[in-house]
Amino acid sequence: MNTSFDRSQLDDMDKRRRTNLINSLSGYKSANLLGSINAQQQTNLALMSSVFHIGANPPLMGCLLRPHTVPRHSLENIVEMECFTLNSVTKSIYKQAHQTSARYARDQSEFEAVGLTPEYSDVIRAPYVSQSPVQIGLSLVETQILAMNETVLVIGEIKEIRLADNLIADDGHLTLGEAELVTISGLDEYHLPESLGRLPYPKP
Amino acid sequence: MNTSFDRSQLDDMDKRRRTNLINSLSGYKSANLLGSINAQQQTNLALMSSVFHIGANPPLMGCLLRPHTVPRHSLENIVEMECFTLNSVTKSIYKQAHQTSARYARDQSEFEAVGLTPEYSDVIRAPYVSQSPVQIGLSLVETQILAMNETVLVIGEIKEIRLADNLIADDGHLTLGEAELVTISGLDEYHLPESLGRLPYPKP
Repeated sequence: MNTSFDRSQLDDMDKRRRTNLINSLSGYKSANLLGSINAQQQTNLALMSSVFHIGANPPLMGCLLRPHTVPRHSLENIVEMECFTLNSVTKSIYKQAHQTSARYARDQSEFEAVGLTPEYSDVIRAPYVSQSPVQIGLSLVETQILAMNETVLVIGEIKEIRLADNLIADDGHLTLGEAELVTISGLDEYHLPESLGRLPYPKP
Repeated sequence: MNTSFDRSQLDDMDKRRRTNLINSLSGYKSANLLGSINAQQQTNLALMSSVFHIGANPPLMGCLLRPHTVPRHSLENIVEMECFTLNSVTKSIYKQAHQTSARYARDQSEFEAVGLTPEYSDVIRAPYVSQSPVQIGLSLVETQILAMNETVLVIGEIKEIRLADNLIADDGHLTLGEAELVTISGLDEYHLPESLGRLPYPKP
């Protein structure tokens, strides 16, 4: 390969350069807005790039929250109310989604600050993002602190799924391209994927 | 929203339909090939769609391996040799990457079966994928079993990064579009992202 870094070169690297590099390494990341609320009805909205599927039965999803960044308000709300929502980010709202990462005061809702609309269902107390075509309501299953850097793994069980029209195929697959979902690379680059098609189930 | 599923509707859903749906919910996923080897020098290659960044200092990455699927060979190798590689999947090799998920026999290497080339460095014993423009060598930090469904969280510490030319920007960000990295949605749809650009650091 043409450029390589061993561990000592990584450790010696300027902090910002290393952060950008390491955040880029995994490849494209999903873009979701995590909606939460506290007992005083203050809402919170935080952009997450580390949401992942854990299992289909029971239906579980997880995300990683870093300890020393703004999403601590989200974490406090999730632990207090034992629920949260995940809402897909589209081309129409990705700039607003990015802006939720600014350090707003505790008493200011990111919904208002960036101009997104909270929406509620009877199933989950946390707010959905009205503008999102894929909305997932989850109850908290557990939080685990990863010992090596105090990142928090939040695991939720899906209680409700709300989808825009025409997204779900007969076999349950979602055609994300229809809804113009975006993907993130590194800390700040956004992309709109074009489908190369679905591949058949692989056999030897 | 136009289509919604509550938990009882999800639980009653046909298994394949539910699996497709739940696997689609998180949005776009990174596509990486996990390279591993055992003490008998048998190599293994497995497509992973749940690789994520855990932290930049120390540089840590994680991935989730489901217990009852083919990557158990990868998991055995990782635990035995305490190392593995992650290799980005591009438009040129995504069909071969998908094919690594077929249930090959234990003694058949997916490298040979799908026509990808193992490549070695002095730092990590596990094989890299020569065709990948982003190659990451990791040592095993720990494996955690998630109690609720026996999924295994594998955490690795980055020991080496090998990059194709022209991928890394001055500030460390990788321009993944240059390398034609693909992204996955659901179980089997592949996409090529087009950049919408980078956004500035958000301030209130």
